[in-house]
Amino acid sequence: MLRTHTCGDLRAADAEKTVTLCGWVDTWRDFGGLVFLDLRDRYGITQITVNPEHDAEMHKLARTLRNEDVIQVTGVVAIRPDDMVNPKLVTGEIDLKARELTLLNRSKTPPFEPGTTDPPGEEHRLKYRFIDLRRKQLQDAMIMRHRFTKLVRDYFDEHGFLDIETPILGRSSPEGARDYLVPSRVHPGCFYALPQSPQIYKQILMVAGFDRYMQIARCFRDEDLRADRQPEFTQIDIEMSFVTRDDILELVDGLIRYMMKNLRDVEVPEIPRLDHADVMERYGNDKPDLRFGMELVDIGEIAGGCGFGVFQKTIESGGRVRGLTAPGAAEKYSRKKIDELTAYVGDYRAKGLAFFRVQEGQLDSPIAKFFSADEQKAIIEKMNAQPGDLLFFVADKAEVTSAALAALRNRLGKELELYDPNDMHFSWVLNFPLVTHNPDEGRWDAEHHPFCNPVAEDLEYFKTDPSKIRAESYDLVINGYESASGSVRIHDPAVQQQIFDLLGINAEEAEARFGFLLESLRYGAPPHAGLALGLDRWVMLLLGYDNIRDVIAFPKTQKASDLLSGAPSTVDDHQLRDLNIKTDL
Amino acid sequence: MLRTHTCGDLRAADAEKTVTLCGWVDTWRDFGGLVFLDLRDRYGITQITVNPEHDAEMHKLARTLRNEDVIQVTGVVAIRPDDMVNPKLVTGEIDLKARELTLLNRSKTPPFEPGTTDPPGEEHRLKYRFIDLRRKQLQDAMIMRHRFTKLVRDYFDEHGFLDIETPILGRSSPEGARDYLVPSRVHPGCFYALPQSPQIYKQILMVAGFDRYMQIARCFRDEDLRADRQPEFTQIDIEMSFVTRDDILELVDGLIRYMMKNLRDVEVPEIPRLDHADVMERYGNDKPDLRFGMELVDIGEIAGGCGFGVFQKTIESGGRVRGLTAPGAAEKYSRKKIDELTAYVGDYRAKGLAFFRVQEGQLDSPIAKFFSADEQKAIIEKMNAQPGDLLFFVADKAEVTSAALAALRNRLGKELELYDPNDMHFSWVLNFPLVTHNPDEGRWDAEHHPFCNPVAEDLEYFKTDPSKIRAESYDLVINGYESASGSVRIHDPAVQQQIFDLLGINAEEAEARFGFLLESLRYGAPPHAGLALGLDRWVMLLLGYDNIRDVIAFPKTQKASDLLSGAPSTVDDHQLRDLNIKTDL
Repeated sequence: MLRTHTCGDLRAADAEKTVTLCGWVDTWRDFGGLVFLDLRDRYGITQITVNPEHDAEMHKLARTLRNEDVIQVTGVVAIRPDDMVNPKLVTGEIDLKARELTLLNRSKTPPFEPGTTDPPGEEHRLKYRFIDLRRKQLQDAMIMRHRFTKLVRDYFDEHGFLDIETPILGRSSPEGARDYLVPSRVHPGCFYALPQSPQIYKQILMVAGFDRYMQIARCFRDEDLRADRQPEFTQIDIEMSFVTRDDILELVDGLIRYMMKNLRDVEVPEIPRLDHADVMERYGNDKPDLRFGMELVDIGEIAGGCGFGVFQKTIESGGRVRGLTAPGAAEKYSRKKIDELTAYVGDYRAKGLAFFRVQEGQLDSPIAKFFSADEQKAIIEKMNAQPGDLLFFVADKAEVTSAALAALRNRLGKELELYDPNDMHFSWVLNFPLVTHNPDEGRWDAEHHPFCNPVAEDLEYFKTDPSKIRAESYDLVINGYESASGSVRIHDPAVQQQIFDLLGINAEEAEARFGFLLESLRYGAPPHAGLALGLDRWVMLLLGYDNIRDVIAFPKTQKASDLLSGAPSTVDDHQLRDLNIKTDL
Repeated sequence: MLRTHTCGDLRAADAEKTVTLCGWVDTWRDFGGLVFLDLRDRYGITQITVNPEHDAEMHKLARTLRNEDVIQVTGVVAIRPDDMVNPKLVTGEIDLKARELTLLNRSKTPPFEPGTTDPPGEEHRLKYRFIDLRRKQLQDAMIMRHRFTKLVRDYFDEHGFLDIETPILGRSSPEGARDYLVPSRVHPGCFYALPQSPQIYKQILMVAGFDRYMQIARCFRDEDLRADRQPEFTQIDIEMSFVTRDDILELVDGLIRYMMKNLRDVEVPEIPRLDHADVMERYGNDKPDLRFGMELVDIGEIAGGCGFGVFQKTIESGGRVRGLTAPGAAEKYSRKKIDELTAYVGDYRAKGLAFFRVQEGQLDSPIAKFFSADEQKAIIEKMNAQPGDLLFFVADKAEVTSAALAALRNRLGKELELYDPNDMHFSWVLNFPLVTHNPDEGRWDAEHHPFCNPVAEDLEYFKTDPSKIRAESYDLVINGYESASGSVRIHDPAVQQQIFDLLGINAEEAEARFGFLLESLRYGAPPHAGLALGLDRWVMLLLGYDNIRDVIAFPKTQKASDLLSGAPSTVDDHQLRDLNIKTDL
């Protein structure tokens, strides 16, 4: 080894020892005839003092050092005088009196300092990712991510799961997202597809009898990227045989407890299991942030008879009037701020946002005059409101009230600081609809994927009202993010056929897309269930970061570019000729 | 859970317990009015007895069961009479008297039985992989592979390594093998490439200060496949900073000891560190199988002066005469068998194979007459031969004698059973040449890749004789397979430039292919080194299998096809249009 210790190791107890450190020059000062260097590595920072009295040549070299140069220093550990102790560093009790100094590598002036509290824009950081990754925030992220994945593997190993690798070069079966394709050289005109998930392979592993499968799997979706999506992402992928839905939920409850105990020393209370329909009613979306309350309330009964035309007409035309109570917000939101909120819910297609400041027994609002004293009291009671609260209402089609109020709820929860941003709240949402109607295409689409088992008692709705069929599915929600999704799978080929019929997938199409799964189901498929947890996002939430790219060593931009390597790039013509493809521009 | 126990759990101590099992019907007998079922899952086999006296309906259902049907059985554990105990099964002391039987899923007649001792051809097995994976050999392989990877991760975690994921969608920088390409939809005309290894990214992680990196990484090479290659394969990828070559070797020595102790309860003796030039001389190739000796011996001094024209002329024209001693083989190899060996070395371009049966103080051979009594004695002495041994010689250009005799040595070692096929022998081969001369192209090629550090004392040969420059590289050899390969990397941009100059890679090309690595080296790259171990092959050797596809859940054929899914396949035209490519057939 080129060193005896790391830059995070040395303490007062090491005084008088001769040691060798290696690392990067984090800061330097040439002061009072001495050179002081802060030497940095992954483990910490140690102060080095270079004194010309020990070695004039060494001191001369030290004076040339600049930030991010890589050096090796041998020296003697010395206890700092009391007034020089640096309590911010774990090594702050000592410094190292240099005896020998070797320049291992010179650095050009870095485009930004890893220690900066004000890093440059993300494009610049991604281009110089090798500098950016030296920043403590990203070092912490990679270390946390390592610990996280190690714990996940330990947990599933202890529970008898086998880590089995499934192919990256798979078959295209487009559903939902676009596939990334890989042209085959050996089979001209044919393509592999990168997996959107190992779904089919893990089901086949159950058919093959592996019973408990897990994989930390790379998945790929060629989608237009939102802020928290990446073209390649990582999921904790699980499947089990001979289990029910609740077995999966208990397994994952145990995982959550294990992770939070080990990573945060927190005991997680019971993880609520919520019904999808109930969640939609109370929070307006299927991934509510439950770090705070502020549930949606329906005032349709009051609104239908009131004198405010907008409310009345909405109820008459089959719409809904729903609202929420922003606690203590009456004075915090000026008219201007409320206008901003109105514009914000407009993004969710709400045509307006009614508001009332709550006073003792009555409401204050430009539209309060349309409501009788009794109606005002009834609203206050229904909304469980206190003087000083601010009430908001959206009157519209049911789904618009849901979407708009769910977004408003999240925004107000954050602005009113209704929760500790470091809290993590876990909940299950169960019984999603199996299918949703696609009015544009006039057909039924699978809510998750076409392999979810329907709830047995809902089979009767196949012929009458498919929208009522619940799936044996479950989503795990963390702080308002869908963080895992899974279901009991169909193991009966006849039920699978029934689903394909409902989804309008004909036999030929089913065979082309999932033929090998369907075939395997005919040869003794056990009842099985599973789920997939988004690893990147869970790690992001654990760190309290809000950018998923900060927990990925080499992420891609929203245009799916790797600014460090320059991928994707043009390639040599002979590479395309080998693959029997041409660009078509 | 649908079961209380697995099919491998029950023992005599469980007698009288009421339990529920799930699994596949492995075999069934309808005998003496009873139905006997062997029920199978991943954990074992348990015998079930179905008696019509308990439940006539149940018995009727049991009579319909056939192999690979999936059932759930509740019953009472009973101790078998002494003469009915099956010592081959861990559950052989008991059987389960069925009380309740549920058919979970019917199986079509399987194309072959998982229990067969005579599985069908590999194409058929790959097509019905979900049946094939039920065979004990493949179940064992997946379980071993899981344990193997878990131990690898535990070892590196204990040694402070961070598991960091590098991208699958990377940049094309073709070297050695062809890249798999992925057309970009967002950037028309541009392509990602799947990584041949995470080499550049892991070096950048060192530049970023991560110090100790590991990943079990999927890698991709679009090569024409040999028996033991796959288009996608898995490697244990490692990189460390501030270390020397020997630090890496010790780390991996420790890994080998840890794995062999945990997986085979074997203490591994000291792992030899051999010099490349020495290994080539003694074994004729750089990955010798050291489970046995039978070293190559040069008899040039004797051959040069003997009366056998072929030997003499070879020496005169600068060639070599080398041979090996096959112990006790004189009577085992008929003339016909030796003719086969002659044809075999012909595949390695040897024009002939001289042989001598060793007798007391003299040699027996059609060509013995060309050698004087003294020369025969000298050969016997030089070859350290005993009566009854068989000597083989190849006279040719040096590299032909190496290749032919190395192949012959491997074949004879196996045929003569000179080693226990279950043994595992590990050795290091060090100091590979940095570059080899490519006479067809008239240039120097990197032996490993262009980032290997040259041995410092050999820098003088850059201008005089590059073939003499040794790399600070190391290969791990297991049983004659190159199982890991690595090197100290170049961290000095000036040395890197020198290598590119030698390899004839001009600045523009270097920038296009590795620009982002070169740039990173300019910003404070620490000295670093690493290696990559082939996981698939190591697991294969541990299991004593000879087919790498048997340790991969869903392997591809030698034509890079997945016979289960049918990948690669044609895709919809609109998919190609989205990607701005056309097939060019």
